[in-house]
Amino acid sequence: MPVFFVYTPNPHDGIMPAMKVSQIGEFGLINKLAQQSNAAINKNSPANRQLVKGIGDDAAVWRPGIPYQLATIDSLVENVHFTLDSITWEELGWKSIAVNLSDIAAMGGIPLYALICLGLPGNTEVKNITRLYEGMLQIARKFGVMLVGGDTVSSPFVFISVTVFGSSSNKEGKVLLRSEAKPGDKVAVTGELGASAGGLKMLLENRKFDPGIMKTLRQAHFTPNPRVQEGQLIVKKGVKCGMDISDGLVGDLTHICEMSQVGARLNVEKVPVSPALRDSFNVKALELALTGGEDYELLFTAPGKIIAAAQKALKCPVTQIGEITSVNSGKVILVDKNGKRLNLKKAGWDHFSTK
Amino acid sequence: MPVFFVYTPNPHDGIMPAMKVSQIGEFGLINKLAQQSNAAINKNSPANRQLVKGIGDDAAVWRPGIPYQLATIDSLVENVHFTLDSITWEELGWKSIAVNLSDIAAMGGIPLYALICLGLPGNTEVKNITRLYEGMLQIARKFGVMLVGGDTVSSPFVFISVTVFGSSSNKEGKVLLRSEAKPGDKVAVTGELGASAGGLKMLLENRKFDPGIMKTLRQAHFTPNPRVQEGQLIVKKGVKCGMDISDGLVGDLTHICEMSQVGARLNVEKVPVSPALRDSFNVKALELALTGGEDYELLFTAPGKIIAAAQKALKCPVTQIGEITSVNSGKVILVDKNGKRLNLKKAGWDHFSTK
Repeated sequence: MPVFFVYTPNPHDGIMPAMKVSQIGEFGLINKLAQQSNAAINKNSPANRQLVKGIGDDAAVWRPGIPYQLATIDSLVENVHFTLDSITWEELGWKSIAVNLSDIAAMGGIPLYALICLGLPGNTEVKNITRLYEGMLQIARKFGVMLVGGDTVSSPFVFISVTVFGSSSNKEGKVLLRSEAKPGDKVAVTGELGASAGGLKMLLENRKFDPGIMKTLRQAHFTPNPRVQEGQLIVKKGVKCGMDISDGLVGDLTHICEMSQVGARLNVEKVPVSPALRDSFNVKALELALTGGEDYELLFTAPGKIIAAAQKALKCPVTQIGEITSVNSGKVILVDKNGKRLNLKKAGWDHFSTK
Repeated sequence: MPVFFVYTPNPHDGIMPAMKVSQIGEFGLINKLAQQSNAAINKNSPANRQLVKGIGDDAAVWRPGIPYQLATIDSLVENVHFTLDSITWEELGWKSIAVNLSDIAAMGGIPLYALICLGLPGNTEVKNITRLYEGMLQIARKFGVMLVGGDTVSSPFVFISVTVFGSSSNKEGKVLLRSEAKPGDKVAVTGELGASAGGLKMLLENRKFDPGIMKTLRQAHFTPNPRVQEGQLIVKKGVKCGMDISDGLVGDLTHICEMSQVGARLNVEKVPVSPALRDSFNVKALELALTGGEDYELLFTAPGKIIAAAQKALKCPVTQIGEITSVNSGKVILVDKNGKRLNLKKAGWDHFSTK
């Protein structure tokens, strides 16, 4: 500690070279992130009350209040799912947690804990990782989730693997499954679709629109809001079949049809296309809403009465867009308002396919 | 389906080009791995009996028999933790699960379920991913663990993030913590140390030894056996403080000292150095055993009587190597048999440090 203190430049002001993760090392970084995470803990949250051991040991330990446990893992990879010149570190942190919370929402569950695995190049600036964690902690706090552990590894580029744990929202273990659609069920979605795919297209093609529209499209793509409370509410109203829309409406409804061994008829004119998307991509808007993906809205099926009850209970829009059929098992048939069949070239999004 | 079948070359014989993951796509790959995983299920295992929903929905669901839940995540990254020209795909699969099981062992817990996130270049051969899963399923079956979900993502190089869930091995939630070492405790380790670091050194420096020694060193590095039963047994015998050795004996004992706010005196001449390591790396052997890391043995502290009971209960070697002190808090002091202090340049392994 210097006695004759003169001047220490702020590492953020560019006079001193920014600190790199290779300089503070793995344990330095872990300690820093643990402090940041622990400072954000909401002491009164159910997650904190049920936690026995958080960051700092070989494994996290908790004693859940509801016996049915849920777990899901998802990763974001640099130059595959994001580029560091378009997404901010805070947005990246938010999104990496959001996509996992959406999987818990898709089960109608309560998210509780997250484990974070960070792959980072040694020359990553420490302040950027602090910003990444700010984004993670912001969404985590919003949904009552705690970061309870993880792993940091050296990697030629950035990747983030997040595992989120939760429980069912009821002691009976009632959840939303993909395999529970029944012929005669109505098909419904929350919110509006396609804005996330529109945001990606806008960034990739460097398109310019009205600032309000650009902001809406960007937020839909980078900082989606998972439908956590909505998932819990529709389970309470008696919905048994549901998932979140990550691969695109048509592709994901096809997953439900395959798993439930039923067909579906989807009225494309009822699909709630995002107004910001209509105002920006016009004739392309419907295709993006049907197949674009990463909407993180809920797609669910139930008898009409239950859908109506869900519509009443939820604050967000709930739109009926089709019905489940016993014919065309495993397939989604697109129709217009006159019942005329339409064709769709590309159904959904596949991470590897070169076809 | 051709009616006049002539000849379909086996994709393994090199006449037909090998199938790439980009050709079968994400969903094709997931289906293939799900089938492979489901075929390996042990129907009578506690993990299977407690499982409500495995692979194929938005999240896995289970109802644990013991209320205290454990979870840990670890990643292996190509060209950081392994190179594909030295490790086989089966070994890589085994190791990616083993390092996580070792974290559950380090808590004295019961591992139950695993979620796998695979980052893969599109040109990865499908048969290699099948081999990777063979290695994973081999160790999973051995320890009663089920693969219940995951995520496959496109990536410029291979990475594997594995999350393993388990429970404490008793209804009271008794586990091994790093923060429970008390002055007067003896320090003990299971098995022998340094062979894994010797295996890595042998591969990096392309060293040749007796084939039996080479096999032992390779296995120690690529297919370690986590001390799962041993962890559960020492909890039963009353041990409260422990962890697994992944960063190196001295570095990991330092973690215990920091977390427990105690010191430790480590008699280097008592350290159980792997005989295969002594026979290959001679004078370097002790340093590798002290700091090499990735041993995946258990390091624990307890009063002498409890250590003696653990020694009696465990089938593997248990060696007393030192004691916990109230002085030198947060530090490990190395001594020889005459009590003379020794110095060590490099304590443990740090993933990012360039120092």
